[in-house]
Amino acid sequence: MKETWSFLDTFEPNFRPLVVIELAKGTKKETIEWFTKRIVDKKANGGAQLLIKPLVTENGDETIYLIGASHLRLLLGAETVGLVKECNDNSMRSFTYSSRKTFKDFADDNHNFLTMSECQYIIKHELENLRARDEKMIPGYPQAKLYPGKSIVRRLLTNGILVQIFPLHDREELKKLRHTWYGRVKIGYQPLDEIRSYFGETIALYFGFLEYFTFALIPMAVIGIPYYVFAWEDYDKYVMFATFNLLWSTVILEVWKRICAVMTYRWGTLLMKRQFEEPRPGFHGALGINPVTGREEPVYSSIKRQLRIYLVSVPFVCLCLYFSLYVMMIYFDLEQWALDYHEENKSTFSSLMLYVPSIIYAVVIEIMNRIYRYAAEFLTSWENHRLESSYQNHLILKVLVFNFLNCFASLFYIAFVLFDMKLLRQSLATLLITSQILNQFAESLLPYWLQKRHVKKMKKHTHSLKTETDLSLVEQVNLEKEMGTYFGTFDDYLELFLQFGYVSLFSCVYPLAAVFAVLNNVTEIYSDALKMCRVYKRPFAEPTANIGVWQLAFETMSVISVVTNCILIGMSPQVNALFPDSKMDLVLTVALVEHLLLAIKFVMAFVIPDKPREIQIKLAKLEFESLEALKQQQMKLAAESLKE
Amino acid sequence: MKETWSFLDTFEPNFRPLVVIELAKGTKKETIEWFTKRIVDKKANGGAQLLIKPLVTENGDETIYLIGASHLRLLLGAETVGLVKECNDNSMRSFTYSSRKTFKDFADDNHNFLTMSECQYIIKHELENLRARDEKMIPGYPQAKLYPGKSIVRRLLTNGILVQIFPLHDREELKKLRHTWYGRVKIGYQPLDEIRSYFGETIALYFGFLEYFTFALIPMAVIGIPYYVFAWEDYDKYVMFATFNLLWSTVILEVWKRICAVMTYRWGTLLMKRQFEEPRPGFHGALGINPVTGREEPVYSSIKRQLRIYLVSVPFVCLCLYFSLYVMMIYFDLEQWALDYHEENKSTFSSLMLYVPSIIYAVVIEIMNRIYRYAAEFLTSWENHRLESSYQNHLILKVLVFNFLNCFASLFYIAFVLFDMKLLRQSLATLLITSQILNQFAESLLPYWLQKRHVKKMKKHTHSLKTETDLSLVEQVNLEKEMGTYFGTFDDYLELFLQFGYVSLFSCVYPLAAVFAVLNNVTEIYSDALKMCRVYKRPFAEPTANIGVWQLAFETMSVISVVTNCILIGMSPQVNALFPDSKMDLVLTVALVEHLLLAIKFVMAFVIPDKPREIQIKLAKLEFESLEALKQQQMKLAAESLKE
Repeated sequence: MKETWSFLDTFEPNFRPLVVIELAKGTKKETIEWFTKRIVDKKANGGAQLLIKPLVTENGDETIYLIGASHLRLLLGAETVGLVKECNDNSMRSFTYSSRKTFKDFADDNHNFLTMSECQYIIKHELENLRARDEKMIPGYPQAKLYPGKSIVRRLLTNGILVQIFPLHDREELKKLRHTWYGRVKIGYQPLDEIRSYFGETIALYFGFLEYFTFALIPMAVIGIPYYVFAWEDYDKYVMFATFNLLWSTVILEVWKRICAVMTYRWGTLLMKRQFEEPRPGFHGALGINPVTGREEPVYSSIKRQLRIYLVSVPFVCLCLYFSLYVMMIYFDLEQWALDYHEENKSTFSSLMLYVPSIIYAVVIEIMNRIYRYAAEFLTSWENHRLESSYQNHLILKVLVFNFLNCFASLFYIAFVLFDMKLLRQSLATLLITSQILNQFAESLLPYWLQKRHVKKMKKHTHSLKTETDLSLVEQVNLEKEMGTYFGTFDDYLELFLQFGYVSLFSCVYPLAAVFAVLNNVTEIYSDALKMCRVYKRPFAEPTANIGVWQLAFETMSVISVVTNCILIGMSPQVNALFPDSKMDLVLTVALVEHLLLAIKFVMAFVIPDKPREIQIKLAKLEFESLEALKQQQMKLAAESLKE
Repeated sequence: MKETWSFLDTFEPNFRPLVVIELAKGTKKETIEWFTKRIVDKKANGGAQLLIKPLVTENGDETIYLIGASHLRLLLGAETVGLVKECNDNSMRSFTYSSRKTFKDFADDNHNFLTMSECQYIIKHELENLRARDEKMIPGYPQAKLYPGKSIVRRLLTNGILVQIFPLHDREELKKLRHTWYGRVKIGYQPLDEIRSYFGETIALYFGFLEYFTFALIPMAVIGIPYYVFAWEDYDKYVMFATFNLLWSTVILEVWKRICAVMTYRWGTLLMKRQFEEPRPGFHGALGINPVTGREEPVYSSIKRQLRIYLVSVPFVCLCLYFSLYVMMIYFDLEQWALDYHEENKSTFSSLMLYVPSIIYAVVIEIMNRIYRYAAEFLTSWENHRLESSYQNHLILKVLVFNFLNCFASLFYIAFVLFDMKLLRQSLATLLITSQILNQFAESLLPYWLQKRHVKKMKKHTHSLKTETDLSLVEQVNLEKEMGTYFGTFDDYLELFLQFGYVSLFSCVYPLAAVFAVLNNVTEIYSDALKMCRVYKRPFAEPTANIGVWQLAFETMSVISVVTNCILIGMSPQVNALFPDSKMDLVLTVALVEHLLLAIKFVMAFVIPDKPREIQIKLAKLEFESLEALKQQQMKLAAESLKE
């Protein structure tokens, strides 16, 4: 059974390496044997029925294994994970092996029916759902306890026996993708379908959103420019601008839902019923029967989860928010103190001291962010969500609220406590521009440069002058395993979210924000693409039907921005001049306008359907067909029971 | 084929009369023959395959027909309309004739498997979906045009050939129901399941909501009483009261959704997919293929409908609202003029003149209401909605907005323009109490008294002294055909909605409103029950899964009431006294509190799931099973296509 993998059999036709697993150095032999046996073992024996081969490197230790699967195994796996594919009659249906012939482009000898990223997703799913049966511990590691239903791979990862699992790049495909994506200078759409088939739906959806959002910001930017060119303080025109912004942001968020539905319908993920899937590997609980699917799997009481969320997580988050506000207040005090000190002394030292509070504050915020992120991950994991999407949503929500406060609290303070519009505009511009520059640098260019250096070193090491597509498998694996890991789209969305905040929350004070946002996003598309293609390991594809809790976050931001903009306009001297006699009238007018805008927003969100009619009909048709099929099945069962 | 129905064969076992149709006097013989032929004709020939018998009355003219159906026909009809019933394994499933044995309480000789109201619903559905085929007009009436797909019954009704269709009461059942419902004096729940099986889901849901709403108001009423008993003007306690009210109203509306889901799941309507049904009889369009179900039916472009809604209906409604406001302003002017006149003259004539504006206004409002209602019905019908529920929702929304304005605009004017809290409290109390008394009288007691008189006259006429359960069929039909028609739950819900407005919009000004509402609702339950059982013809059952647009209406009202209460509290002298220096601070504080309350409301509505977990699981299970069945079907089809 055990075959070694060497330089020579790189192109052995029966084994296409898809996923790499790296074990820790010095992993015990019995552990490796047990683990590989579980991987290749038949499904009936609790195995994953995949193929595995060790990669023999020059220095001879076997810590890296390549995982593949037969074509048949992958097709069966596609059925298990519930992939949805297009049929010959152009409808989208769940793939099943027995009805494989009815799917578009299917042929038994066509190994490209499943994309490589789909195959890798299937393998990942199978590996993660390799669960302990009667083992009490991992052989060779008595401290690594197992219990029935525990995900083996997860236990190996938490105990450090398994260092990492990652999918291999397809150098040929990647080169093609790079070319169409950012290789030629052109104005146009990104090749989202190609991105999706290489990186999966989650990442394609992020790039889709980034592109859409950039286009959607252009009208705001265009309208914002004349405000900068002609007159800064023309507030009655700002009212128009702000009103346009507020309604426009509602429209773009509603329209995005429709675009997203069209896209994910085409990709099949809109129809994928992920709630019927097996639970995420981190989910634990006593083995029981899932009440919906009737499958045996860990079950965990939802009341317990609710209690954990509302009695522990929510109070913890609130406490952290309070603490963060408290730190901000200290910062403002320090700032004031430094200013006073400088006024009194007027020395070089005192002018240097002016920068100290900001630096301290920046460092403290960074530390708090990291600690909080760690705590949020721990808490969300402890909440024990059954679905990956639910885990992600809860985690994102926690981190989001905290980041929102850290980013915007000082701006809110300047705007609504200090009433200093000039300082607000200044801070806003500084924050927006520096954060954009820093982000682009830290996120893509720096890692790209480091990566380039690493590749050069590697090449020198292997004394080869081949271009990267000609790399041998061993070289490729060694190169890729050292690359950084892409930790999901969270940070990318967060950046967009904060940008949206800068653009919309105080749009009537600083209309140029949209211009900077558009400029940033155009380069962001390229730098993010670069990052995905050249800096990081290939990430596993993750099917998804929408951008999840981010939609809610952006919508909430647009509601908050109605409030802030109305207040800002109400506070402006020009508007104040319109109500010379009574400040009351001013405030009441502002409140009235704000409520009207909010009402219009809600009506608009209610009136614009979330899915285009065409997609609605297709979904209704599927539902109708399913219900009809269920009826048919029932009738057949009844007929059979009559015969007996 | 044609058998006559006389006094003697009342209890002929094969024909159970379910529905009565009354034709106009002097309807041409050829029309009657054609119509009855279509009713009894085989489905394959475009008929409804029902049974029909003329009812021969004493004076011998045949204008009344009784419609029934064989047991088998009704079971097949239950499958067509998609009734959902409980299976032997306690799951709820769509009834199909071939799987009939798997359903609870089914036996081929058990004619009570379908309730009488279900049978009547099926017959109504079949009659309404009797559509013209190649007929160009109704035989005998060349002016009554028909085109393929046009509902015959609807054309007959609009041309006055068909006077009415109504289901028969079941005197035995009704007596039992009356006894358990309101026959004995007891504190307790209404027999909702019995109401549902006699009157159908829509009416049962109304009574369920009425009961729930009454219970939900009790805490508000209990907290409101001490405010009346001890101190009227203690505003800081009113803040507490108002805050409680606002959050409480959110909770009760969210919890109602859950209770409603539990109830309608038990009744099977939560699972009934009404969007897959045949279109409502009033729906017209060229015959085409429904893209979802693949059935041949009239189709109508949804874009055209949208255009009609947004370009005609919405502007029309806005215009009417404006006109209504204008009339109100004239009323206030007249009122002022009458007051001035009285001040000047102080005569008996002038004091009588004081009442004139109110009387004129009341009459004008009543006239406007009627005209508007007629216009709204016309417009909604012209919008051509495919589903009855969609038609109802659009109609309700139109009428609702207008009624809301007429009822509350004057109160808003008094509160926020005249700033007269005393007058507000007075008007509120007067409006609430008089409208309640008038309603109870006009809605139930008056018709009940008229009905009683009519029955007495009838009995004198037929010289019989029998109690009503012993009435012969002819007597019963003659009695019932003269009874009033119940035009659906709209007016009942509207009454509750306006009551909710009186209770919540100005709750901090008049806390006693909740007490009156509770008292009114307790008697309302009895008078509405009386109305349903004794005053009106039996209405056709209408399956429904929720209270539709009323949920939205109540929720919107509770949002508006947050705003009004915050303003009212802000305007109170006591709260004003807390901010002696700056009115600005007061207004800003009020605005802040209001936004906080609104935010809490939205978070609460978001966090409380609409369906209890148990129901969610059952629905998910059904969806899972349907998708699995679809997969199975696909696999079987693929296997068959392979064999060929």
